[in-house]
Amino acid sequence: MTHPSLSGYPSSVLDEVARTREVVARLHAELPRWGLVVWTAGNVSQRVLVDPAAGPGPDDLLVIKPSGVTYDELTAEAMVVCDLEGRLVDGDRAPSSDTAAHAYVYTNMPEVGGVVHTHSTYATAWAARAEPVPCVLTMMADEFGGDIPIGPFALIGDDSIGRGIVETLRDSRSPAVLMRNHGPFTIGKDAKAAVKAAVMVEEVARTVHISRQLGEPLPIEQHHVDSLYARYQNVYGQGAAAPVTKEEHA
Amino acid sequence: MTHPSLSGYPSSVLDEVARTREVVARLHAELPRWGLVVWTAGNVSQRVLVDPAAGPGPDDLLVIKPSGVTYDELTAEAMVVCDLEGRLVDGDRAPSSDTAAHAYVYTNMPEVGGVVHTHSTYATAWAARAEPVPCVLTMMADEFGGDIPIGPFALIGDDSIGRGIVETLRDSRSPAVLMRNHGPFTIGKDAKAAVKAAVMVEEVARTVHISRQLGEPLPIEQHHVDSLYARYQNVYGQGAAAPVTKEEHA
Amino acid sequence: MTHPSLSGYPSSVLDEVARTREVVARLHAELPRWGLVVWTAGNVSQRVLVDPAAGPGPDDLLVIKPSGVTYDELTAEAMVVCDLEGRLVDGDRAPSSDTAAHAYVYTNMPEVGGVVHTHSTYATAWAARAEPVPCVLTMMADEFGGDIPIGPFALIGDDSIGRGIVETLRDSRSPAVLMRNHGPFTIGKDAKAAVKAAVMVEEVARTVHISRQLGEPLPIEQHHVDSLYARYQNVYGQGAAAPVTKEEHA
Amino acid sequence: MTHPSLSGYPSSVLDEVARTREVVARLHAELPRWGLVVWTAGNVSQRVLVDPAAGPGPDDLLVIKPSGVTYDELTAEAMVVCDLEGRLVDGDRAPSSDTAAHAYVYTNMPEVGGVVHTHSTYATAWAARAEPVPCVLTMMADEFGGDIPIGPFALIGDDSIGRGIVETLRDSRSPAVLMRNHGPFTIGKDAKAAVKAAVMVEEVARTVHISRQLGEPLPIEQHHVDSLYARYQNVYGQGAAAPVTKEEHA
Repeated sequence: MTHPSLSGYPSSVLDEVARTREVVARLHAELPRWGLVVWTAGNVSQRVLVDPAAGPGPDDLLVIKPSGVTYDELTAEAMVVCDLEGRLVDGDRAPSSDTAAHAYVYTNMPEVGGVVHTHSTYATAWAARAEPVPCVLTMMADEFGGDIPIGPFALIGDDSIGRGIVETLRDSRSPAVLMRNHGPFTIGKDAKAAVKAAVMVEEVARTVHISRQLGEPLPIEQHHVDSLYARYQNVYGQGAAAPVTKEEHA
Repeated sequence: MTHPSLSGYPSSVLDEVARTREVVARLHAELPRWGLVVWTAGNVSQRVLVDPAAGPGPDDLLVIKPSGVTYDELTAEAMVVCDLEGRLVDGDRAPSSDTAAHAYVYTNMPEVGGVVHTHSTYATAWAARAEPVPCVLTMMADEFGGDIPIGPFALIGDDSIGRGIVETLRDSRSPAVLMRNHGPFTIGKDAKAAVKAAVMVEEVARTVHISRQLGEPLPIEQHHVDSLYARYQNVYGQGAAAPVTKEEHA
Repeated sequence: MTHPSLSGYPSSVLDEVARTREVVARLHAELPRWGLVVWTAGNVSQRVLVDPAAGPGPDDLLVIKPSGVTYDELTAEAMVVCDLEGRLVDGDRAPSSDTAAHAYVYTNMPEVGGVVHTHSTYATAWAARAEPVPCVLTMMADEFGGDIPIGPFALIGDDSIGRGIVETLRDSRSPAVLMRNHGPFTIGKDAKAAVKAAVMVEEVARTVHISRQLGEPLPIEQHHVDSLYARYQNVYGQGAAAPVTKEEHA
Repeated sequence: MTHPSLSGYPSSVLDEVARTREVVARLHAELPRWGLVVWTAGNVSQRVLVDPAAGPGPDDLLVIKPSGVTYDELTAEAMVVCDLEGRLVDGDRAPSSDTAAHAYVYTNMPEVGGVVHTHSTYATAWAARAEPVPCVLTMMADEFGGDIPIGPFALIGDDSIGRGIVETLRDSRSPAVLMRNHGPFTIGKDAKAAVKAAVMVEEVARTVHISRQLGEPLPIEQHHVDSLYARYQNVYGQGAAAPVTKEEHA
C-alpha cells in the first residue's frame, strides 16, 4: 500500500503530523547546540501513529529532516513525512538519505518512537576502532545500563544499516549503537529521548576516551551497574519497555 | 521536625528564600556557559539560614534545581526549596536526585554555604581513574592549595555520596572532590564560590591532563604551593575558615 | 593584460561581481562558526566568469577577503576583486596574501569555482607530520573518496603553493590537500562547496585523530570506499567533473 | 614620585587615558571569545605615554582590568589606571594582581605598548612541562620567528615574574613567553597586538600539541623560518623594532 500524499488520512493524524513536524524541527537545533554535527549532517525522526488505538504498526508514518538542508533553515514546514518503506508522503524535498535506516527501526522495534543519527566526534572515533565504550561512569550505568555496543559495517542503499541497528540494540540495554566506521544511531520512546541519548552517548564517549588517554579507568562492578540502571529506570522512567523509556537526568 | 511548606517561616526567611532562588537560578546558567554540563545534568544549591543570628544549623533550608529541567527553563520560580533531610518544602517539581548529597554537606559542614555538582569532562575523566589531579599549576596552588582529591565510589540513594564528600574535603584545602567513577562536587561559602570552584576544577583538570599527554609536568615545591595558597587566601579571601572563603582571581 | 579597474567590464560581469561579493562575504562567516579560524586567519574566494558562454578562462576574476580584516568587518563591500595574476582590480584594501595561490588554482583547474584556505587545528596537525588522513570513516569515503593527501612544503611569495595544491589534487578524488607544515586548502565547483570541504576536512581530521589516540582505526576496504564515493557523487552530485561537484550531505 | 590621582595631568593625557580605557575594555572581550580564559582570569593592559614627544618613559601610565571583575562587567569605566610602580592612580577597584608584572615590562621594554596574560589551556600545558613549543608551522615562523620560549618559575609578590618575562623575551623574536607552571604572557606595540599574540600562542600551542600526539611533526629548516619571518615582518609590519610590530595575518 503506497501513500502518495497525506490526503487520505483522518484529521487526527494530520494534526499529529503537524505537531510532530514542530517537535522534530525544534529537536534538530539540539544537534549543533551540543556540538554533535557540522554543516548539514545528522538527522532526527519521530514516529506518527496512524492508528493510536491499535498502537504501532507497519502503516505508521515518520517525520524526518530533508536531505542537504542547513541547520539555519530547519523549520517545521521544511520537515518531510515518509512511510515505513522510506517513501516520501509529504514535503517539498527529498528525505534524508538515512530515512531507510530510520524506517527499518520503526518497523522492527514497535516500542521505538524516535531515532537520531549523528557523526559526533568521540562516538564515531570509538566506532572507527569497532570498540565498545566500557561502562566506567555512574552516568553510563544510569543511562545505558552497561557498555555502548558496536554495530556491524554496513553500506547505505539497502536494509543493512537498519538491520545492524536493530540486531545490536535488541540484545542491549543501551539506547545507542555505534555503527562500525560510521557513527552513532540512538533510539527512544520519542524523538526527544533519542536526542537525549545522542547527546549522552557523545558525552560518555568523550569522557571515557579522555580518561583512557592517561591510564585505565576503573570498572564499575556489574551489580552496581545493575543497581544504578534499575534505580534510574524506576525513578525517572515511565515503567514501559526498556531501553526506550529513559527520562530526564538531573 | 518536618517542613511541609514555607508558611511557618518569618518574612525575613521568606525574603531570603526569594533572593536565593534568584541567585541559584542565575548561577545555573554558568554551568553550560563554561561547558560543564550537557542536557539537564548538573546542579547548584545554596543554604538559607533560618536563624542568621545563631548561624548555620540543622533547621536550615537549601535552594536547588529541580530534577530534569532544561537549562532554558531555569527561572527563579522553577527552583525548589528543601530541608536538610532532603525533603521538598516549596516548589512545583521534584528536587534534583542529588539533593540528599547537598543536604548532607550542609548538615556536616556548617561553614559551607553553596554546593555544586557536575559531570564536567576532564574532572570526571580523572575521577574514572580515581587519580588525584597533581598540583603543577600556580593557579591550582592559589585556588586548591594542593592536589584535587578523589572521593570513594558511592551509590546514590542513601548518605554514601554525602559522606564521601565530607570525609574527603575535611582533610583537604581543596574546595573540590572528584567522586570515583562519578564526577566533581565543589563547595564554597556561597553558591557563587562553589560555581567558581566547579569552573576552576574543570579548567585545571583539563590543563594538567593535556600537559601530561606529552610528558610529565614539573611539580611545584610544597613550600611554594603553601606560599601561593596563603597569599591568595589572605589577599583575596575574607579571613574566614578555609577552604570555603576563596574569592575572585584576576 | 592588466585590469586596473572594473570600468571596462560589461554590466553582466559587474552584476556577477556584486553577487559574488555577497556570497563570499557571507561564506567567510562559516569559518569562525565551525571553529576553523582565529583572529583574521583564513580566506574564501570564488571565480567570476568574464565570458560565461566560453566558460572558465585566464581572463576570469576572483573575489577574495582582504588582508587583515577581522571577521566582524566582513561585508560585501570589504571584499576585493583580483585578476588571475593576483593583481587588485577593485577594492579598498590589499587582497589576502594567499591570493596568488587561489589564482594559480583557478588558472590551472578550470573546473574549480571556489577555493578556501584555513589553518584549522586537526587538519594542520596532520599537515605538520606530513601524514595523509587515512580513509576509515564512511563520511570520508562519501566526501573525499579516499585518503586526504599531503602537499609539498612551499614558501609564500611565488607560485609554489599554488603548484603544490594543483599537483596534489590532480591525482586525487579529494577536494582537500594538507600543505606540509602549513594547513588545508580546499576546492569546489563554487565557494560554498569549497567551504563545505574545509568544514569536512577538519571534521574527519579530528575524528580520525581521536580514534587513533587509543588504537588503530579499522580500514574500509577499497571496493567499499569506491562504492560509497560513486553513490554519493551520483545521488548528491551534479554529474560534472569530480572532485568539485560534491553536494550536500544529510 | 607618587600619582595619587589623574588631577595633575594635562588634558591630552586625560583624553588618551579615556580612549585607552575604551580600547582595553573592548579587547578584554577577545579573551573569552577565543576561549583563552574562564571566570575572571586573564588581563590586558596598554601603556599611556605621558609625554608623547619624548616617547616611552618611567612616568608613563598603564590601563588594566581590575581584580575579580567578570567579563560581563568589563566597561571602560571599570578599567583602572596605574603608574609603572603598579600603584593605583585612578579607578574604583583594586588593579589586577598581575599589575606589577605588566608595569615591570613597560619599564624595562620601552618598545612595548601592550601586555596580555592568560592561563590558556594548551600554552599553559607546555608551560607546566617547561617545554618550548617547537616551530613546526609556517604560521609560527610568520608570527613568532621560531620556538615559543619558556620563562622561569616565579612567585607573585615581587619583581620576579616581570623579570622572567623581560629576560626571556629580550633574547627571542617571540612576542610570547610561557612562564613555567604558570601560563603565557604576550607583548605587542599596543594592547591589540598583544591580544593577537595571546590568541596565536594558544592556537599554535594547541596545533603542535595535537600534531605531536601521534608522532613527531617535521621541523621547518632554519633558513625557511628566517625567510618566512622576515617577509611577514616586512610585508605586514610597521618597520619598527621587532618583536612588537607584528600586524594582521590574513
